[in-house]
Amino acid sequence: MDTRPIGVFDSGVGGLTVAKEIMSLLPNEKVIYFGDTARVPYGNKSQHTIIKFSQQIVRFLIEKDVKAIVIACNTANAYALEAMQEIFNIPIIGVAQPGAQMAIQATKNNKIGIIGTEGTIQSKIYSKLIQSMNTDAHVYGKACPLFVPLVEEGLLNDSVTYEIANRYLRTLKEKQVDTIVLGCTHYPLIKTLLQEIMGESVNLVDPAFETAKNLKALLINQNRINENNNDKYNHYFYVSDRAEKFEHLAKIILNHPMMPVEQINIEDY
Amino acid sequence: MDTRPIGVFDSGVGGLTVAKEIMSLLPNEKVIYFGDTARVPYGNKSQHTIIKFSQQIVRFLIEKDVKAIVIACNTANAYALEAMQEIFNIPIIGVAQPGAQMAIQATKNNKIGIIGTEGTIQSKIYSKLIQSMNTDAHVYGKACPLFVPLVEEGLLNDSVTYEIANRYLRTLKEKQVDTIVLGCTHYPLIKTLLQEIMGESVNLVDPAFETAKNLKALLINQNRINENNNDKYNHYFYVSDRAEKFEHLAKIILNHPMMPVEQINIEDY
Repeated sequence: MDTRPIGVFDSGVGGLTVAKEIMSLLPNEKVIYFGDTARVPYGNKSQHTIIKFSQQIVRFLIEKDVKAIVIACNTANAYALEAMQEIFNIPIIGVAQPGAQMAIQATKNNKIGIIGTEGTIQSKIYSKLIQSMNTDAHVYGKACPLFVPLVEEGLLNDSVTYEIANRYLRTLKEKQVDTIVLGCTHYPLIKTLLQEIMGESVNLVDPAFETAKNLKALLINQNRINENNNDKYNHYFYVSDRAEKFEHLAKIILNHPMMPVEQINIEDY
Repeated sequence: MDTRPIGVFDSGVGGLTVAKEIMSLLPNEKVIYFGDTARVPYGNKSQHTIIKFSQQIVRFLIEKDVKAIVIACNTANAYALEAMQEIFNIPIIGVAQPGAQMAIQATKNNKIGIIGTEGTIQSKIYSKLIQSMNTDAHVYGKACPLFVPLVEEGLLNDSVTYEIANRYLRTLKEKQVDTIVLGCTHYPLIKTLLQEIMGESVNLVDPAFETAKNLKALLINQNRINENNNDKYNHYFYVSDRAEKFEHLAKIILNHPMMPVEQINIEDY
């Protein structure tokens, strides 16, 4: 047994959707969350920069004595997961592997669409993972760079978001995909709108729950599950900027009481 | 006479519109430009963070032996200009003062609109500057957080940008402003569209040219004008991420040959 916390990080608030699934599936585990709000977004930055940022965050989380780390950001997963696994001697998992597994289980016609940031799509991480598991699968990626700003402006059910989504999804419709991976942690927040455009017959895959399941399997496998009944909601949240704004959004997303969010200087790590 | 270069910085490419006016008005001056592309955008980050970032950049520019610095970013100007002037012993000017002066000269009904990022609008920098020069002026600020991502996606003449601009500008129309300051260096790129929405009778003020004039006055005043005829286009460009992408955009904006863009680690300063 290992009572140490789980580290989870993202460029901002998006990864809280993953943290929430972890808290729900593994209620005895403590979570240490870091959101890199001073340097958000990650989606249009280079691999070199994303690796540097991820390295600083992993060092911070290790200093907080976490027993495992979840990269709850598709871009950081795409660009930095392998490098982090090589550099650090601690279990580190991402969201893309679970997302790819779910897509393979969900598709019937073997035509899978991936939507994400420029970085995630350019990395072809989902294509590589899916094709390594199912060589018959056809994978079509589409970068949707305006979704994050539109979601952050709260235009979740807006005609403008609908118009932009319609443009982005056009090619995936033409390819007749029956499954789309929401390859960015912001996108579940506009799932209803995306489903309306694609039609009810298309599966929209959100990797968050499957990621929590992967983490659970890892902890069981390594005998690291925390069986002590902790104080509930005993999670800690850190950001690199604007703690109050983060706390406001986090309360809405997590929908339960939480500790005050603390701001740290991530460049020092 | 002082042959050292002028430092100019912005969160990304936007400040190149200011650099271009400086190169044109002061053709003998060399420019050292820094774009903080690893941490862009600045518009929705805190004053604390913007001061920290600006301090690192000013240290970098001073190491490059510049004789004066232009903060070619409205958010950094709003949040960090005064702090930089206090900390560093070098002339530092911004874009807001020239923008405010131009607005006062342009308005006839003393109703002035300011559009900019969340940070620039929340700081009320333009209101304070304008009202200190003209107590009769009424200033109406409106944050336009989606303009930067829309411009960066190249949707300069798009129906979606038109729809969003129409929403943002509605209150300024209702207030019957006759002058609007483009309080973000990205906005001149959608000036045509903004003019169409507001009508030809409304003045759209771009502070870039006036900023170059302010810089010239400062150099003359301090006897720091470079009278040597330099090699033309002998300017240097640095970024914190994705030098190639920056170079591509910079060539379009500046429209003349330029030195290769160099990537540096700004967090080291």
